Amino acid sequence: MKLIQYIHTHIDPKFTGELPFSVHKKQVPKGYVFTDFEEIASKVYFLAEGIAQVEILSKDEIRILDFFFPGSFFASYTSLLTKLPSDVRIRSIMDCEVEIIDYTELKKSYEFSLLANQFGRIETEKLYLRRVQREKQLLTQNAQEHYLELLKKYPQILRHIPLKDISKYLGITPESLSRIRKRIS
Amino acid sequence: MKLIQYIHTHIDPKFTGELPFSVHKKQVPKGYVFTDFEEIASKVYFLAEGIAQVEILSKDEIRILDFFFPGSFFASYTSLLTKLPSDVRIRSIMDCEVEIIDYTELKKSYEFSLLANQFGRIETEKLYLRRVQREKQLLTQNAQEHYLELLKKYPQILRHIPLKDISKYLGITPESLSRIRKRIS
Repeated sequence: MKLIQYIHTHIDPKFTGELPFSVHKKQVPKGYVFTDFEEIASKVYFLAEGIAQVEILSKDEIRILDFFFPGSFFASYTSLLTKLPSDVRIRSIMDCEVEIIDYTELKKSYEFSLLANQFGRIETEKLYLRRVQREKQLLTQNAQEHYLELLKKYPQILRHIPLKDISKYLGITPESLSRIRKRIS
Repeated sequence: MKLIQYIHTHIDPKFTGELPFSVHKKQVPKGYVFTDFEEIASKVYFLAEGIAQVEILSKDEIRILDFFFPGSFFASYTSLLTKLPSDVRIRSIMDCEVEIIDYTELKKSYEFSLLANQFGRIETEKLYLRRVQREKQLLTQNAQEHYLELLKKYPQILRHIPLKDISKYLGITPESLSRIRKRIS
């Protein structure tokens, strides 16, 4: 899905294709760092193809916070909003095609554009809910329930993400994930 | 602070006073329930006077998630966005004056009003950051640091909120809070 289609489908069905900010397309290889630890984020990415992964450093170990799949926006949003250094790193885990919006330009368009504000509001609402849901999962779901939900939501995940990274995301050891997979198969 | 002033100061300095949705004022006594557990939220509140407290049921015990002070918006936002029953209860912990926006009306105004979308976007950004900050505090701050930060941010808190509720918010026993207070005094 392209950004233009996304806006039409998810933000404004009357959208005719004229955006109040510029967008530029980029192909990036696997392992590309969109935003690094300690970098002040300046861009919003729309993922047209591929998978991106959000990582955090916790006690000198990389933990995986989130995955993004095609047809979604991602950014180090806290860093964008606060202008503080990012405490997450966002990387491509396969070749990706992204469409890039410069946040300074987006913010300028917030001053006058209904569409830009609808877009910003709706995407922020989604990020907010994502955060709430993730918190709730951590508090209430065990690793097996969490894994099953992940599979249901992203059936393609096993084809693209190594099991050791899925276990990092679930916050368990690769051995525990193996046991879960045996149990449910 | 009144909602009208708030919009002028925080959303749009050119705001002339004509809102795209209606607002009605209400005085409520201490203990008033704005949104109850399992209720589907339908309103956004601007707190003009007083303090509101967000509570959650955790293992049959009430825990305090958040406090709201004058000059801020509050709602069971997840319930508003998802139309699912609220897992939090929001109550006044002293007499309050609120200005109420009906969410259905706000959503209608999102279809055409730049101001409504700027308002919705900016307030959602704030709620998002509040959530992120709270998560980080839970992960990285001990109770004493968290207490000191609370005092710094809301110096008036001790005058209005019983110590047992502050300890519930910090997730510690009243005795631990007493020890912290002795240590830092």
